[in-house]
Amino acid sequence: MTRYCFSLLLGVTTLAAQPVDTLITGRYVVTMDGARRVIENGAMAVRGGEIVAVGPVGEMARKHPAKQRVDRPRAILAPGLINTHCHAPMTLMRGIADDLRLQDWLEKFIFPAEGKNVTAEFVRWGTRLAVWEMMRSGITAYADMYYFEELVAEETKRAGMRGVLGQTIIRFPVPDAQTPELGLERAERFLKRYQNDSLIVPAVAPHAPYTNSDAMLQAARRLADQYRVPLITHVSETKRENEDSEREFGMSPMQRLERLGILKGPTLIAHAVWMSDEDLRIAARSRVGIAHNPSSNMKLASGVARVLDMLKLDLAVGLGTDGPAGSNNDLNLFEEMDLAAKLQKVTTMDPRSLSAEQVFEMATIRGARALGMAQKTGSLEVGKRADVIVVSLDEPHATPIFNVYSQLVYALKASDVRDVMIDGRWVMRDRQMLTLQTEEIRREVERLRSQIAASVRP
Amino acid sequence: MTRYCFSLLLGVTTLAAQPVDTLITGRYVVTMDGARRVIENGAMAVRGGEIVAVGPVGEMARKHPAKQRVDRPRAILAPGLINTHCHAPMTLMRGIADDLRLQDWLEKFIFPAEGKNVTAEFVRWGTRLAVWEMMRSGITAYADMYYFEELVAEETKRAGMRGVLGQTIIRFPVPDAQTPELGLERAERFLKRYQNDSLIVPAVAPHAPYTNSDAMLQAARRLADQYRVPLITHVSETKRENEDSEREFGMSPMQRLERLGILKGPTLIAHAVWMSDEDLRIAARSRVGIAHNPSSNMKLASGVARVLDMLKLDLAVGLGTDGPAGSNNDLNLFEEMDLAAKLQKVTTMDPRSLSAEQVFEMATIRGARALGMAQKTGSLEVGKRADVIVVSLDEPHATPIFNVYSQLVYALKASDVRDVMIDGRWVMRDRQMLTLQTEEIRREVERLRSQIAASVRP
Repeated sequence: MTRYCFSLLLGVTTLAAQPVDTLITGRYVVTMDGARRVIENGAMAVRGGEIVAVGPVGEMARKHPAKQRVDRPRAILAPGLINTHCHAPMTLMRGIADDLRLQDWLEKFIFPAEGKNVTAEFVRWGTRLAVWEMMRSGITAYADMYYFEELVAEETKRAGMRGVLGQTIIRFPVPDAQTPELGLERAERFLKRYQNDSLIVPAVAPHAPYTNSDAMLQAARRLADQYRVPLITHVSETKRENEDSEREFGMSPMQRLERLGILKGPTLIAHAVWMSDEDLRIAARSRVGIAHNPSSNMKLASGVARVLDMLKLDLAVGLGTDGPAGSNNDLNLFEEMDLAAKLQKVTTMDPRSLSAEQVFEMATIRGARALGMAQKTGSLEVGKRADVIVVSLDEPHATPIFNVYSQLVYALKASDVRDVMIDGRWVMRDRQMLTLQTEEIRREVERLRSQIAASVRP
Repeated sequence: MTRYCFSLLLGVTTLAAQPVDTLITGRYVVTMDGARRVIENGAMAVRGGEIVAVGPVGEMARKHPAKQRVDRPRAILAPGLINTHCHAPMTLMRGIADDLRLQDWLEKFIFPAEGKNVTAEFVRWGTRLAVWEMMRSGITAYADMYYFEELVAEETKRAGMRGVLGQTIIRFPVPDAQTPELGLERAERFLKRYQNDSLIVPAVAPHAPYTNSDAMLQAARRLADQYRVPLITHVSETKRENEDSEREFGMSPMQRLERLGILKGPTLIAHAVWMSDEDLRIAARSRVGIAHNPSSNMKLASGVARVLDMLKLDLAVGLGTDGPAGSNNDLNLFEEMDLAAKLQKVTTMDPRSLSAEQVFEMATIRGARALGMAQKTGSLEVGKRADVIVVSLDEPHATPIFNVYSQLVYALKASDVRDVMIDGRWVMRDRQMLTLQTEEIRREVERLRSQIAASVRP
């Protein structure tokens, strides 16, 4: 009785001292903090978009009376997932060219289709569809590289999603820039516009070492440094890319990037499939972020990235979906988690390779590190922004539960994500999207689909 | 006006001649018939549990007035998926022991846990949970091997699902039989009980060549022949199994099975990962069915089955989930389809390997062949039983659609399955399970979970 009164008093005291906006409770809170705490019957409190407390339900309810309380007794609360590599607008070309040789895929379908279809309108609707799919499947932040990236940024911000978004710079004429120099100008306008945004980190994205000159790569780095933003690029996706680099430059793409000084500032590299020991050492000493894309690497038969070696070096390697036009067909990190683990196991012939916990780490806090955002997101810790997902345990595949990481990585699905909060704002509640006009998106996507289909007919 | 009257007249005429129970319409009907017809705006008509017509909506609506009409203008109608390998009750041990060495997994977790927990009650509730998960994800028929298989059969039949269900026979004492001889007796009682059942095909399931003597394998075959039912067994799952067989018998498991006459009747083998050219030739001339289990083979690091070579020989190779206690964590053929394709692509380093259409074939008609059921199910064709699924195109990952097989294999999810009909009976409508008490299953599974968890604590 004494204790009860004390709690009540404390509650009242706390109410005056620390009112919170939202208290969310769950069967398990998977924090991904330094101690990797998993709190059974836990809760988190959010105020002003920031996580102000994480702990057991009872204590939290006493200490943090809330304006809004959301109880999820049959769900997991977890950090929002981080998609470290995407080309969001390509979602409009989902499945347009599958099961083809790489050359045929790119040259007969993707490049012609992009040439004919990629306009401002395409980028807007494609991004809307992509952020709808991503947020709905528990992704709260993503890295992107495409054309008209300022529109990708507008739509991402409007939807309330977090992004590290890179304007593409590439040697040949593309839909939003006839030359790489014009691409660079476009990038600079973009960087200016999104300086110090709460959700969007603009970036410079030279497509790849093999599609840019030394001078252009260096100009891109200078621009990124000037605005203190990251540089994003594709590196060593295919074996052929490495062979070409050796022939032309006498060194690997990673060696070339280091030699040119490109890796001196914050850098995110996508794929990194064909990395030598020396390349991995370069990655370690340059502290680059790496996007591992298991679906894409498998589907395009690019190869198998050395994820175990990357983790041994404690590299910031996250998971990515890549774009959904051949390299993948969806933007689903639950599937990438499952694939990442299974791919390492079968290719090393050791079932212990890449545990569920390691994979979940890649999809959250390690992915946040890859994006240079680990101070802000990637775990449920006091002081970080509230990027949190509620994953329901209602479906039959969610029960019974013996290990929460196993369940998240191998059993639970994107469709189990019930609620999503980004930066303290609900973007999905009870599977209802709160920041998007989904019927309008569906209609416009259907309209664009007919145009695109007609344009690639042989 | 004339045409309208004519239609009405025709409708009336047809009504008298061919009333149907149900007409289901969809945006696409993926028939998987011999011509691989995909009908845009199609329909199928069902009478007495049998498919009586498949065709364009307009014509079908005219010719087949129906007592019940189900319109799904934004969905795909497809044959129910066939899970060619499962251990249904093991669903109760979902994720109990992941990321371990094979020996540790089996000897420290699975065998002790089975020894302490596998009772009639365990098998009943485990099967209920499994058929719930399977039907909900679009699986309409499955092959199983476990203990107390008569209870697996009871629960499967009660749920309205189709099964080829094998009573396990194994060298060492197991929960339902102290000796293989007693297992064989149990199997015979089971075969007698389910002779000529409309949904259940009982089977004899010697666990594997390496866990049974020559004599016992032959006794199992004789029993299967006597009752004209299939024999199910695991073959060449691991490299070590083959090496042991070479050492002990001077031949591979497939060679041994052929030599012993085991393959002379209908046989379904699971895994078939380590198959030599000669083993594949044996499979071809014996016309065995093969269950390919990509999740299990990857997760346990068993290896990569030679699926492309199997298809070259036109073998009856289907897809399987295996059991969800370490070898997998769910019973989800949509994920197995995606994995099967991607695994072949990355291991052959050719993105053309195993197309979406080939994979969908494995999950349907080729899987039906593996189970000896191709006359009855596996495609939407006149004269077959009505095993059909409705896959919604409502979610963002389902749009746009350029290729229906790509969408089914690489983009759509088990959670998109909206309705399921088996043998002409709806078992799920609008995501509502119609033949299962799901809340009761959930409660009992939670209760059993505590028992199981306590039993494996070190």
